[in-house]
Amino acid sequence: MAKTAVRGTFLDFVDDPWTHVGAETEATRFFADGLLVISDGLVVAFGDYAETAAAHPDAEITHLPDRLIVPGFVDGHIHFPQTRVLGGYGEQLLPWLQKTVFPEERRYADREYAQEGARHFFDTLLASGTTTFQAFTSSAPVCTEVLFDEAARRNMRAIAGITAIDQNAPDWFQISPADFYAAATEQIAEYHGKGRNLYAITPRFAFGATEELLETCRRLKEENPDVWVHTHISENPAEIRGVLDLHADCTDYLGVYEKYGLVGPKFTGGHGVWLSNGEFRRMSDSGAAVTFCPCSNLYLGSGLFRLGRATDPEHRVRMTFGTDVGGGNRFSMLNVLEDAYKVGMLNNCMLDGSIVPSDQDLAESERNKLSPLRAFYSITLGGAQGLYIDDRVGNFDLGKEADFVALDWNGGPPATAWHMSLLAPDGGPTTVQDAAELLFGIMMVGDERAVDETWLMGQRAYKKA
Amino acid sequence: MAKTAVRGTFLDFVDDPWTHVGAETEATRFFADGLLVISDGLVVAFGDYAETAAAHPDAEITHLPDRLIVPGFVDGHIHFPQTRVLGGYGEQLLPWLQKTVFPEERRYADREYAQEGARHFFDTLLASGTTTFQAFTSSAPVCTEVLFDEAARRNMRAIAGITAIDQNAPDWFQISPADFYAAATEQIAEYHGKGRNLYAITPRFAFGATEELLETCRRLKEENPDVWVHTHISENPAEIRGVLDLHADCTDYLGVYEKYGLVGPKFTGGHGVWLSNGEFRRMSDSGAAVTFCPCSNLYLGSGLFRLGRATDPEHRVRMTFGTDVGGGNRFSMLNVLEDAYKVGMLNNCMLDGSIVPSDQDLAESERNKLSPLRAFYSITLGGAQGLYIDDRVGNFDLGKEADFVALDWNGGPPATAWHMSLLAPDGGPTTVQDAAELLFGIMMVGDERAVDETWLMGQRAYKKA
Repeated sequence: MAKTAVRGTFLDFVDDPWTHVGAETEATRFFADGLLVISDGLVVAFGDYAETAAAHPDAEITHLPDRLIVPGFVDGHIHFPQTRVLGGYGEQLLPWLQKTVFPEERRYADREYAQEGARHFFDTLLASGTTTFQAFTSSAPVCTEVLFDEAARRNMRAIAGITAIDQNAPDWFQISPADFYAAATEQIAEYHGKGRNLYAITPRFAFGATEELLETCRRLKEENPDVWVHTHISENPAEIRGVLDLHADCTDYLGVYEKYGLVGPKFTGGHGVWLSNGEFRRMSDSGAAVTFCPCSNLYLGSGLFRLGRATDPEHRVRMTFGTDVGGGNRFSMLNVLEDAYKVGMLNNCMLDGSIVPSDQDLAESERNKLSPLRAFYSITLGGAQGLYIDDRVGNFDLGKEADFVALDWNGGPPATAWHMSLLAPDGGPTTVQDAAELLFGIMMVGDERAVDETWLMGQRAYKKA
Repeated sequence: MAKTAVRGTFLDFVDDPWTHVGAETEATRFFADGLLVISDGLVVAFGDYAETAAAHPDAEITHLPDRLIVPGFVDGHIHFPQTRVLGGYGEQLLPWLQKTVFPEERRYADREYAQEGARHFFDTLLASGTTTFQAFTSSAPVCTEVLFDEAARRNMRAIAGITAIDQNAPDWFQISPADFYAAATEQIAEYHGKGRNLYAITPRFAFGATEELLETCRRLKEENPDVWVHTHISENPAEIRGVLDLHADCTDYLGVYEKYGLVGPKFTGGHGVWLSNGEFRRMSDSGAAVTFCPCSNLYLGSGLFRLGRATDPEHRVRMTFGTDVGGGNRFSMLNVLEDAYKVGMLNNCMLDGSIVPSDQDLAESERNKLSPLRAFYSITLGGAQGLYIDDRVGNFDLGKEADFVALDWNGGPPATAWHMSLLAPDGGPTTVQDAAELLFGIMMVGDERAVDETWLMGQRAYKKA
């Protein structure tokens, strides 16, 4: 197989920066002038340019100067059929679903409409630097089929599955447990592990699932232990109250999914804004993951995810970060980082003790601060670990799929370049500290205009016009 | 004087939408095909195209099709010499000032650096649709001079003044009350009321002001009753505690400014995140204004401004909205609206009663919802009213200065146009309801890329490349 290579300034992660407080760069790998060598879409060498190039004289090199190259972004929670409806007005979760979301998602039962949606969805993800996602679809099988087909055509790593709801939704939007079982079983055979597609058993959320539906999920997971489980958890106070009314034998929201054997590795619950300390601990113990969706949590007024609690070293919970489009109003994981930073800082106006001195918790407060290295870890290696796909993506380790993003730190609103010139006055970053400063600028001052190129398995899949 | 005119789709406000709950369009004026006639920079006619054009056959008409034209945006609180430092990492207000802000502002004592900053500042404001601002400068007189000179050159309406601090800042950043008095007096004579410039007595904040400095502000206001007063108030819990320690005879933050006779019409306090109900009432009674700076309040983790409380009809407080660059991380008032919406929705996860039933306040919750008409009112007519300049700017009433923005609702991230096509499927808005939907999309899905043109006093000052 022919070898290709990309030369440029690289930054990726080899560990979790939250476990290196005060020395985060220990979790980081940085080459001011580096080379990534690729064969058959996989990383075969990564290191300093001079020595790596010497070891691979046969590699055809593409040089991307004046860019900061990082692993492709992982969006842990996105709703494919909500691509068009980001931005519904004025409602919290439950009425918003009824008014805005279900009617739009219904249209994805039509293959042609779903294909049009898929074009916009993938184009926008790639323009945003997202190379891996875990998605909800709709209750119509065709919606999931179209998503997987298009992911395969684009060669993008996708986790998805038909999204089941059988109560608290209009009749025309529900799917029966039997139909769900049949469709999921068929789709697992058809799509799971084919190319880069992976399947997730996807009950929409406990509020929309009868006991029979959850039993069906348990059965699917037992019959297909290798697949993923993806759902929502503890997003909104009214939703939580509704779930506990429906499942009176469960003492908390996580308990519902536990009861049906769904919580463990490869389980992701989206949001987790209102998870108790006990639920966080049980998720940590079981290896389950939570997705932090700050744009959505602010947009729908759901609340403030306790980032500093989820990252408690004694009970670290696996995390992905997600846009939650269309509950989130932005497709770009850079905007997710912006809002995630804001949520962490907001949490801290409580934890610094200046409001209620007894609430002071400076260690948790420190963990709430989304430093640029924590941030980009969270949407690359951290996201891959949250999804249990860090053997395939997340950084530039040998054998991983060569998905990456070339960032132009000057891309963004008008003042961006002048701002960045203060952070790295002599042009590109020459140290990991300079690179971290630029990354912080990109996430707080820039936006998806900083994404100059997106590559999938060693092939350029997007170039900014 | 030659008459010019602009033809297009117009929306502006004639009243406060918060006073028309359920019938907000009563506060709005909309012409699907309208004409704005301008002479000597001022509006001389505004109305439906056909009849207005017939009445002004001599006007030279510029047609801006496929745009939504709204009054220019008012930024009520921005720090000119922080143009380059938006995005400092990880600190709340007080340490952030020391580490990041004061060193950068110090550079604006150099005229050449200040001029470079001014170019970026005005270019970015105009590209963001901002046509009026109230700004902090630094404690160096030259910084204020450069700002006013450049505002005059650009013909932009500016309110500003030398920004005084004489404690809790490095020595090299302080200004003595005597020097401040002399500089402000000289600048009032030189700049106030010249062209579009207006002067504000600007003590930075009570935490940085000795009693002598506040006495000096009182004296300046007594000697120049026509000028503005601009400062900060109740931004951050630690700051508030500091202020009350310094002013032990005052029972709250507002009381400090009241004690020195500064609170009343033309007074603006920035932030007001932690204002008590009593302080809101006293501000309302006195005619003082507060600036809501949501990007900054989230960015610095200051807290959640109580929008629904400030808009209580019994004690309505005048409001401007502001970027608070660089405490805020975005120059665009559209991003301010995005974060303002999120703050309002976050407030409501408390007020809906699902957490603590006794906290339920559905009327305040309703006022927390930043509808698109409330939003664009707040950054046009509402902002002008907050600054007591609504006799000059804020809408298209006859005699006002013809500042406006032509919005391209398709400008923004990649998915924007497809999203917008759902809101106004047949192209431009033909009703005020359609226009409102597009405005909501612009503020939540779009960004300053939606600003296609910005006009100052009837002249095009910015056109998107």
